[in-house]
Amino acid sequence: MNSEKKFKAFGDSLLNFLYSLAKSRASGTWTGEKVSNSVLSQALIASKVDQPGGLDKHEKGDFVEAYIAQAWIEKVITTDEAVDVLVKSLKRHDLEREEKKAVVEAFKDLLNCIEKKR
Amino acid sequence: MNSEKKFKAFGDSLLNFLYSLAKSRASGTWTGEKVSNSVLSQALIASKVDQPGGLDKHEKGDFVEAYIAQAWIEKVITTDEAVDVLVKSLKRHDLEREEKKAVVEAFKDLLNCIEKKR
Repeated sequence: MNSEKKFKAFGDSLLNFLYSLAKSRASGTWTGEKVSNSVLSQALIASKVDQPGGLDKHEKGDFVEAYIAQAWIEKVITTDEAVDVLVKSLKRHDLEREEKKAVVEAFKDLLNCIEKKR
Repeated sequence: MNSEKKFKAFGDSLLNFLYSLAKSRASGTWTGEKVSNSVLSQALIASKVDQPGGLDKHEKGDFVEAYIAQAWIEKVITTDEAVDVLVKSLKRHDLEREEKKAVVEAFKDLLNCIEKKR
């Protein structure tokens, strides 16, 4: 799949929302979060998703935003399914001690889940 | 209803997501947006929602984030319903020429819709 750049800006809002909801559920406290390009870039590298070569960290983050947004827009994955994948992954970690590692793993799992459904 | 501050941070993510989705639908172009406290404050003043006295602009914005988030969490309103209300309102305006006015009206309508369902 070619993830189209036109979904990137929407993807930013969508991913912050999905992660805020997932972290709220995993931690039991309502919270609002932003997901960094650095985290998304590491998640992409660890995932099974085919990615164009030559991307820097920022471009990899943009790619992930567009990739997940396009899947959500095309109903490959619903909000509930995406949040379930993230929550399941987050719950395997201690969010207070290793949140960054937990978020990378969670988005890696979400990317792999979408790749499998494509 | 006392909107609890604990929903404010999640409300920030939720409102940016709802507005990004609504503007994408109203404009026909996928986009990611942030909703300012100033806009939310004006929407609250124009709405029929009871609000605590003595709030400054920033606190009014926080109140709206918490109010809408709590309604969404308690399933008073779903994502689709909220986006439908926002889109209907946005379509009454020229988004390129008067976006701020359009967003204030859209969130006023959403607040009134929630107030009526409570």
